[in-house]
Amino acid sequence: MIKIIVDTLGGDNSPYADIDGALSALNAIGDAHITLVGNEEEITAYLNGKEYDKERLAVLDGKDVIGCNDKPTVAIREKKESSLYKSFELLKNGEDYNALVSTGSTGAILAGAVLKIGRIRGIKRPAFCPILPTMTGGIVSICDSGANVDCDATNLEQFAMMGNLFLQTAYNKENPKIALLNVGTEEEKGDLLRKEVFPLLKNNPELNFVGNMEARDLLSGDYDLIVCDGFSGNVLLKATEGACISLLTQLKGVFKKNLKTKLGALVIKKDLYKLKDYMDYNNYGGAVLLGTAKTIVKGHGSSKALSVFHCIKQAYNMEKNGIRDKISERVAPITNGEN
Amino acid sequence: MIKIIVDTLGGDNSPYADIDGALSALNAIGDAHITLVGNEEEITAYLNGKEYDKERLAVLDGKDVIGCNDKPTVAIREKKESSLYKSFELLKNGEDYNALVSTGSTGAILAGAVLKIGRIRGIKRPAFCPILPTMTGGIVSICDSGANVDCDATNLEQFAMMGNLFLQTAYNKENPKIALLNVGTEEEKGDLLRKEVFPLLKNNPELNFVGNMEARDLLSGDYDLIVCDGFSGNVLLKATEGACISLLTQLKGVFKKNLKTKLGALVIKKDLYKLKDYMDYNNYGGAVLLGTAKTIVKGHGSSKALSVFHCIKQAYNMEKNGIRDKISERVAPITNGEN
Repeated sequence: MIKIIVDTLGGDNSPYADIDGALSALNAIGDAHITLVGNEEEITAYLNGKEYDKERLAVLDGKDVIGCNDKPTVAIREKKESSLYKSFELLKNGEDYNALVSTGSTGAILAGAVLKIGRIRGIKRPAFCPILPTMTGGIVSICDSGANVDCDATNLEQFAMMGNLFLQTAYNKENPKIALLNVGTEEEKGDLLRKEVFPLLKNNPELNFVGNMEARDLLSGDYDLIVCDGFSGNVLLKATEGACISLLTQLKGVFKKNLKTKLGALVIKKDLYKLKDYMDYNNYGGAVLLGTAKTIVKGHGSSKALSVFHCIKQAYNMEKNGIRDKISERVAPITNGEN
Repeated sequence: MIKIIVDTLGGDNSPYADIDGALSALNAIGDAHITLVGNEEEITAYLNGKEYDKERLAVLDGKDVIGCNDKPTVAIREKKESSLYKSFELLKNGEDYNALVSTGSTGAILAGAVLKIGRIRGIKRPAFCPILPTMTGGIVSICDSGANVDCDATNLEQFAMMGNLFLQTAYNKENPKIALLNVGTEEEKGDLLRKEVFPLLKNNPELNFVGNMEARDLLSGDYDLIVCDGFSGNVLLKATEGACISLLTQLKGVFKKNLKTKLGALVIKKDLYKLKDYMDYNNYGGAVLLGTAKTIVKGHGSSKALSVFHCIKQAYNMEKNGIRDKISERVAPITNGEN
C-alpha cells in the first residue's frame, strides 16, 4: 500500500479539485491510500454520497490556509492549524506515509520539505522538476526549476541523476535523453558553471547525456530532461509559459475581432481547443521535489481535479518504483566528499 | 553626416537584403552616409539603375565570408579578405566612421568588437541589447542577452545604464521602465548576484527602476528594459522566441489539417498574418552592442531588407544622439574603481 497525503487547501480550486482528484486516483489505483487534509466538515460533507473505497481514505482536520502573503518559513513553523502544517507533521511522523501532494504555496511547501522532512542523506540540495508538453506530443522535464538559485557543479550533476530516476520511475522512460541548458550547443560554450558541469554529465555512466541545449529547443521533443541551475531553469520555464500564454491571448483577440473572424474561429474551434488542451500543463501533473526524505509533489496553483489526479499518480509511481532508495543508492554518493 | 558601414555578407538573405535595406535608409535619412562591404562587382551590378544619392554611398570590396563554421576569434584575425574583417578595419581606422551593421556571425561580430574596436573607457564589458515586440504593441529590450555569461554586480548596473541610454537615444523613450530579471517579484528574491544588484539599481539616480520581473512577464508591456546576466538573458530571449515559433507551427498544423480548417483559416488569414508580422522581431531592428568604442548593430541572421533598414536606423539614431559620449560620461564612472 502506498500512502499519500493530499492537502486540500491553498490552490485556486481547492478543496473540491483536490478531493475530486484524490477520489479519481483512489478509484484508478487499487493499492493507494489517501489522507485528505483540510476542513474536515467540508470534506466529509462533500464526500457524502460519493463512490469510493472507504477503507483507503482518511480525513485529517486542519482548517487554516497558508496563503501567498504568508512568509513561508514562518508560516510552516507557526500556523499549526493549517492544512500544510498538519500534512507535513503527518508525513514526518507517520512512518508508513510515503508522499504529499499540495497545490498550495510553493514557498511553504519548499520550506516544509527542507525544515520538516529533510534531504536524502548525501543529496546536497533538493530540486524541483516540473513537466511540460512538447510539440511532438511527448513531455520534457526541467531540473532544477527554481528550488536552488545558487548552484555548484555537484548540485547540477545530482539534479541530472535525480531527474533521470524520476523519468524512469514516474514515466517508465528507459533511457531519458538529458541535455544541459546552455547559450549554445557546442561543447565549449557557457559560463564557468556550465564548463565545469559538462564533463561531469558526459562522463557519468548512468546518464544518457546528449550535450548542450539552447532554450529555444525546449519544446522540440528532442530532449527528455533539461539540467540547469534553479535561476536559469526558472527563467526557462516561466519565459516559455509566458510566451505561450501571451500568444494564445493575442490569438483570442484575432478571433474575437469581428463577425467574420468569429465565424472563422468557430470552424476550427474544436481543433484549437485540442491545441489549448495539449498546451495546458495542468494535464501533465505537477513539479515533483526530488531529493527529499519523502516524496513531495507541488501541483500548479490553478490545478483542476485532473491535474491533482496526475500529481497523485506521479507520487504513486515514484514511490511504487522505489525512487527514494534509488536516489539514496545511486545519486547520493556523488557529493565530492561533502554532505 | 553619420557614416555607417553595412556588411553585405553572412546573413541568410545577403547581399540583396543588406543592399536594399541600405538604400531604403539612404533615402529615408538625409545625412546618412553608407559604405557597403562585400563582393564589389555583385554590389555594383545590383546598384545599377537603382535610385539613390550616389554622393552618400560607397562600396568596399571584401568577397570572403565568415560563416558559422569558422572559429570567430581566429576568423576575425585571419580571414583578411572577408567582408567583416574589412568592415572592422574600416570602422577602426576610418576616424569619421560611426557605426557598423552586420547580419553575419554573432561570434565574429563580438570578437571583432572586442579585439579590434575595444570598449569605451570605464565600461567593464560590452553587452548585447536586442528588441522584442510586446503584447501591447510596444517594444521591450533585454540587456545583456548573451555577450557575457559570467557577470558581477557592476556589470549589471552598467548594462542597466547603457540600456537606458539606448532606449533614450534610439527610441526617444524619456524614462524607460527598468526591471531586474529574477525568480520572483519580491525585493528579497534571487541568487547572490541579484541580491547585490537590486540595491545598486534601486539607488541609482539615473534609472527608473521598477523592481524585479519574472520571465513570464517579458512581453506584458509593463517594462521597457530587462537587466540580466548574459546567460539568463540568453535563456529568456531564446525561450520566448522558441515558444512563439513552436506555438505558431502547431497552429499552422491545425489550420492545414483538413478542408474545413483550411477554410476557417482562410477567413482569418489576414488577421493572422498581422499577428505573425507583429511577432516577427525582424521588424524591430537588431541587437545593438553597447559599450564599444564605436556603435555596432547585429541584425538577425534571417534579416530581410526591412530589418536591415531598422538596424541602420538604430545605429543612426544612437550616433545622432551621441550615445557613446553619454555612456562615457555617465556610465563609465560606475566601475567600482576598476576598469
